[in-house]
Amino acid sequence: MRAYDIIKKKRDKEKLSQKEISFMVKGFVDGTVPDYQMSAFLMSVFFNGMDDEETYQLTECMRTSGDIIKLDKIKGFTVDKHSTGGVGDKTSLVLGPVLAALGMKVAKMSGRGLGHTGGTIDKLEAIKGFSTELSPEQLIEAVNKFGVVIVGQTGNLVPADKKIYALRDVTATVDSVPLIASSIMSKKLAVENDGLVLDVKVGSGAFMKDLASARTLAKAMVGIGKIAGRKVTAVLTNMDEPLGEMVGNSCEVMEAIDTLQNKGPKVFTELVEVLCAEALKQKDPSITEENAINEVKRVLSDGSAYNKFLEMVKFQGGDVSMVEDYSKMPLATARAEFKAEKDGYIKKIQCEAVGIAGMMLGAGRETKDSVIDMGVGLKLVKHVGDKVTKGDVIATLFVNPGQNAAGALEKLKSAVEITPEKVEKPKLVLDIIS
Amino acid sequence: MRAYDIIKKKRDKEKLSQKEISFMVKGFVDGTVPDYQMSAFLMSVFFNGMDDEETYQLTECMRTSGDIIKLDKIKGFTVDKHSTGGVGDKTSLVLGPVLAALGMKVAKMSGRGLGHTGGTIDKLEAIKGFSTELSPEQLIEAVNKFGVVIVGQTGNLVPADKKIYALRDVTATVDSVPLIASSIMSKKLAVENDGLVLDVKVGSGAFMKDLASARTLAKAMVGIGKIAGRKVTAVLTNMDEPLGEMVGNSCEVMEAIDTLQNKGPKVFTELVEVLCAEALKQKDPSITEENAINEVKRVLSDGSAYNKFLEMVKFQGGDVSMVEDYSKMPLATARAEFKAEKDGYIKKIQCEAVGIAGMMLGAGRETKDSVIDMGVGLKLVKHVGDKVTKGDVIATLFVNPGQNAAGALEKLKSAVEITPEKVEKPKLVLDIIS
Repeated sequence: MRAYDIIKKKRDKEKLSQKEISFMVKGFVDGTVPDYQMSAFLMSVFFNGMDDEETYQLTECMRTSGDIIKLDKIKGFTVDKHSTGGVGDKTSLVLGPVLAALGMKVAKMSGRGLGHTGGTIDKLEAIKGFSTELSPEQLIEAVNKFGVVIVGQTGNLVPADKKIYALRDVTATVDSVPLIASSIMSKKLAVENDGLVLDVKVGSGAFMKDLASARTLAKAMVGIGKIAGRKVTAVLTNMDEPLGEMVGNSCEVMEAIDTLQNKGPKVFTELVEVLCAEALKQKDPSITEENAINEVKRVLSDGSAYNKFLEMVKFQGGDVSMVEDYSKMPLATARAEFKAEKDGYIKKIQCEAVGIAGMMLGAGRETKDSVIDMGVGLKLVKHVGDKVTKGDVIATLFVNPGQNAAGALEKLKSAVEITPEKVEKPKLVLDIIS
Repeated sequence: MRAYDIIKKKRDKEKLSQKEISFMVKGFVDGTVPDYQMSAFLMSVFFNGMDDEETYQLTECMRTSGDIIKLDKIKGFTVDKHSTGGVGDKTSLVLGPVLAALGMKVAKMSGRGLGHTGGTIDKLEAIKGFSTELSPEQLIEAVNKFGVVIVGQTGNLVPADKKIYALRDVTATVDSVPLIASSIMSKKLAVENDGLVLDVKVGSGAFMKDLASARTLAKAMVGIGKIAGRKVTAVLTNMDEPLGEMVGNSCEVMEAIDTLQNKGPKVFTELVEVLCAEALKQKDPSITEENAINEVKRVLSDGSAYNKFLEMVKFQGGDVSMVEDYSKMPLATARAEFKAEKDGYIKKIQCEAVGIAGMMLGAGRETKDSVIDMGVGLKLVKHVGDKVTKGDVIATLFVNPGQNAAGALEKLKSAVEITPEKVEKPKLVLDIIS
């Protein structure tokens, strides 16, 4: 077998076999297929795509390139969630406790962030003492006991994806559905959960800008899950504006706590309900959509989801009093306000610009070595479709000395468009694919 | 400027500027653009092509990457020919003397062969003493005096093409019209002739299998010439069977001598006439096609083309008596005959298989270090469309001891198809593009 022939086959739109795909992936990882052949191959995939079977084989080759995390010592239905990423996305903080309250098992492995704000792991460190490093035994003990932990990723998970992604990143071969789908799914399926709910973001603030391409990606990922014999559901949700009100680290944890106490922002709560209902339907296929949603509403309103969060924080060494009174969490004391300069309706809130504003305040990492300021961030109180009167506060910035508050404010202003015409509230859930 | 953005632009079908193309080519040659980015770029060109202007800019960047050979010390209309390659192609040996006899100036630079037979330079070495290494002064003196020399390529001509071609060869990006056209034209235009006639071969024995794709390549090359301000004409000719009768080294020189004496094979003579007439039309645009062809016929029949060949051989140190009596040239003495096994008409003579038969006899180089046997080869006396009776000789092999004559004969047999139905003689000249 020669890499040349495999490149040519894909270039000429012929279907690749499991052996051919494996030859390319393993060869690239072990260095026998040079990077210049891999990049030509990836560009051929960009142009000619891959069918469901090829995409699955690629995923499986990558998935098995490193450690596989088995969860067979956990009793019950294990479930995971993945989001394709957006601004203000604190879903993982809420989802785990809700799913645990619903009787599912969540051993959530999250990463640190390189971007507008920190990742889930960074955000949780706003709670003093919270440790995301548990031993495998502790993890199993906790999940079996009360259903949820959130830990940092350990081990050598999917090294093939790391190496291939690094090459795609410099050869303009990132934007390819089979490559995106296999990259995400190889990592998610390397952790052997029973169920998986994918939150595929759609819109100006997401990787997938329109519903059609998001749907294509979602179908590819669900297709991989089917061939792999896993339960996978994709929920397509709107990311034309930041999710919820808070963008930052501490402040996003606060919003998560509010939401767990059933007093969170309406749209964010709706997202939690839909994603958790889909997980519940994976666990119990006989349940109706309506009953599943009602179950989620119940664990949010009766305090059981919030209690799971408290149990998790306690087990992971976090200061529970900071959760019970989150004013103890770090929050910058200075404020800057962004007020409406005219009457009208909010037409657009550009996610990218809002994220950059957060970054300018110090909420994110520009490089791997940047230090995150947990207390800075912003609260967006107006949303797309809201009516505003000149002088109304649209957003409040939490500012620390030495940060570029004026720049962040300017950036934020550039993100928001107000029109005299009435604007429809966008729909959150655009499609569900399973 | 970043290679990433240039790859992405081509990937997304945007037009590249001169600066962007130059950034990629120069960067790749000097090592600042890594091979994995270049191969992704080349694959994008494979899929999305290049327009005339881009293809010209790519050609020009490559052309100027090394030495440029100026011919300004040569008085008169300098002209060159390029063939996209085929089996039995000894055209260069005949064309130079004919063009010189027509009053043009030919400083032909040729290569050695890696393939079925030797290259032009190899073949000429069948004439004892013939040297293809002339000093620049000798070259100019000779061409000014009698119009024609054939020398080996010297200097660092188009290193960018060498490096890019080596990468294309292992990344399945050879078969791309703008890449083929720019590769050929960068080398041809690096030698600054006034005119250039391209012999674009079409058919089963050629790189371009069908007329449509050959026409596309021809148009691309003529287009480059136009933007470069050079006179370029492409003649599309049939390569569904080997050219002429002889395939080998010595024996091809013999056929060239026959042709210069106006007693060569009909089809090969026709090719010489057409290509030379096109060169003449470049020199003198007012001449009619008919008159141009008649001029070529004249220099072939009055001995003036043959005399130019003698002058060239003499100047380049070759043994003129071997030309005057080519039985003095090396020719294997043993013969093997391939005879028709049934009555019928020759339907096909596969070039590739004929070439391999020649190679099996020792006529070509399998690797750079292989030694060519000048005396071996074969003579195809029957051609497509010819009627044959069982037992008729189709080809004679010139065989030396120790070579795989039986294998070559078998290969040759597999190349020829005989049918009971009458077969049309193929047309030689399929199109002329200028």
